[in-house]
Amino acid sequence: MLYREEMKKPDGRSLTLYGRTPIRVEGEAPSPNREPLQANPHLRWHPLRGEWVAYASYRQGRTFMPPPEYNPLAPTRDPENPTELPQGEYQVAVFDNRFPSLAQAAHDPPREAVKTAPARGKCEVVVFTKDPSASLAALPLDHIELLMEVWGDRVALLGSDRCIKYVLPFENKGVEVGVTLHHPHGQIYAYPFVPPVPARMQAEELVHYRETGRPLLEEMIEGEVASGARILYLGEHAVSFVPPCARYPYEVWVAPRRAVPGFDRLTPAVRADLARALKTTLLKYDGLWQRPFPYLMAWYGAPADGHEHPESHLHAEFYPPYRSSDRLKYLAGTELAAGMFANDALPEEKARELINVEVVL
Amino acid sequence: MLYREEMKKPDGRSLTLYGRTPIRVEGEAPSPNREPLQANPHLRWHPLRGEWVAYASYRQGRTFMPPPEYNPLAPTRDPENPTELPQGEYQVAVFDNRFPSLAQAAHDPPREAVKTAPARGKCEVVVFTKDPSASLAALPLDHIELLMEVWGDRVALLGSDRCIKYVLPFENKGVEVGVTLHHPHGQIYAYPFVPPVPARMQAEELVHYRETGRPLLEEMIEGEVASGARILYLGEHAVSFVPPCARYPYEVWVAPRRAVPGFDRLTPAVRADLARALKTTLLKYDGLWQRPFPYLMAWYGAPADGHEHPESHLHAEFYPPYRSSDRLKYLAGTELAAGMFANDALPEEKARELINVEVVL
Repeated sequence: MLYREEMKKPDGRSLTLYGRTPIRVEGEAPSPNREPLQANPHLRWHPLRGEWVAYASYRQGRTFMPPPEYNPLAPTRDPENPTELPQGEYQVAVFDNRFPSLAQAAHDPPREAVKTAPARGKCEVVVFTKDPSASLAALPLDHIELLMEVWGDRVALLGSDRCIKYVLPFENKGVEVGVTLHHPHGQIYAYPFVPPVPARMQAEELVHYRETGRPLLEEMIEGEVASGARILYLGEHAVSFVPPCARYPYEVWVAPRRAVPGFDRLTPAVRADLARALKTTLLKYDGLWQRPFPYLMAWYGAPADGHEHPESHLHAEFYPPYRSSDRLKYLAGTELAAGMFANDALPEEKARELINVEVVL
Repeated sequence: MLYREEMKKPDGRSLTLYGRTPIRVEGEAPSPNREPLQANPHLRWHPLRGEWVAYASYRQGRTFMPPPEYNPLAPTRDPENPTELPQGEYQVAVFDNRFPSLAQAAHDPPREAVKTAPARGKCEVVVFTKDPSASLAALPLDHIELLMEVWGDRVALLGSDRCIKYVLPFENKGVEVGVTLHHPHGQIYAYPFVPPVPARMQAEELVHYRETGRPLLEEMIEGEVASGARILYLGEHAVSFVPPCARYPYEVWVAPRRAVPGFDRLTPAVRADLARALKTTLLKYDGLWQRPFPYLMAWYGAPADGHEHPESHLHAEFYPPYRSSDRLKYLAGTELAAGMFANDALPEEKARELINVEVVL
């Protein structure tokens, strides 16, 4: 059972609380500031890359390493210093980012030397737990399953807006990737177009499906399971592995074994196993060097275009910034300027390191 | 006049010295190690992204922040501790990277779960000057022109190899982008395919050229010159500007005003003005916060496929890691996972900051 309570913040932003038991909240939805949000981001077309770039110039002033006594993602204790969340009974919270790169009310983009458009869409913050000192890895399996249901609810809800074409849940974790708030949380971006990376993925998946009648990632996973050399977790319904084409040394993918287009289409059994695959991966990461392991985690699913996507295969890709315990992998010339990743490490070797980390769920 | 002297290092790598006056060198080409290079990188196909990834696992051991008394890019002083360069009369040096992601001798790639190929190609190091304490910005204009002739010579030479399809000169500068050697230098990657970013650029340029008969970037530059709002340098033949679609807050493009496919096709007059545009940009960067300004600089030209490319337009793109004097722009969820860049700053505002920096060439 998934309980959901929608609220409105005094500055107009929405807040949705989720839990396994009925939601109970004291008072109204809090907000660190009460002035109505003036977000009006716009898009500009990049003619040489053939892609949109989003501009939201007010973002420069966003929260940056607040003092430890103020955590905007913890439930409000002092009504004089409200945070983003209320006291009450709930487990996961989702609210509109105060500094969105994409906003539903975006309007009247400036005229520029390149084509422009309102940056319609939505940027949400997902608070994984009320406990500021927890982490996604530390959450109980049933809490991770709940989070996956929340992601499914958001993807379905945001995707039902006709101006939204793609919804991406992700988590940036660690100061190494620029994270300014350490309370466990992720984000969801709802785009008014399919962004370049998922668009490319979708195109490759579609070509393969049309040629073979099989989902591309499902076939890759069968090969990984058969070889076993890079498998971190193998359950009845879900799997975690270092992909044979890893671009980052410690890249890992987590997925259902059979193609499912999105979180909102997972059966309870598959979701439960996917939660085990995810938690196993996260515990192996943290166990590798016996310290919190930074990463970017993104969950790719089907575009939100109202069509069936039997070729799409929900999965997470983890991009960790380290290439060894004390060296970062900097993205530089060949990665950022050419788009060809050069990996110092063989995926099989990095998989072995992670396989050797023992974890207890 | 461009003088060139080719030498062979004891480990088999090549070294080419360039100068405006005849090259004179004492002794043989030095090398920090004499064992023959065992570089055998391979490529793996990334099915979901439809792109190649290069694997060169020995690169983990590469030089990392050597002690200040040993600089492998300075001319050798102590024959017992040879560097990469000899004593002698020359101005710019190019040699094969000891830890290449791409190598001409690559052979017998491993069989893997995904398609593999030998990572044929070349990775060269370009030492801009013998002076370890200089910088590209600090070099005299005629030295920068010489460097552009060297880039042209390398692009033409590497591109004449039938297995090479694209040649990219670039410079990573600053610890913020992971640079381990501060002696002024750049790199050249010669790829056995057109990598994703220049491939996309080329495709957009070609479509535009076929539709309009005009090179895309040449038209953009005419618009920038007419507006003037983002122009950092405007000469008779070359220009420097913050593009209206900047993905990085301090992104700058430097280009000839008329389309030229590559360094090897520049006339002396255009090259001289392009050097002024480049030096102006670099001095403005360093002047902005009165300290060395880190960046990634990449020079895009036409593919090395033996065809004419009237649609291609040689230009540099600078991707600086800072979004303000004390804040880095981290690439995270939307940039790395979705491929949509979100920029905190309007290009016009950042252009104004750079326009206001006065420089003397």
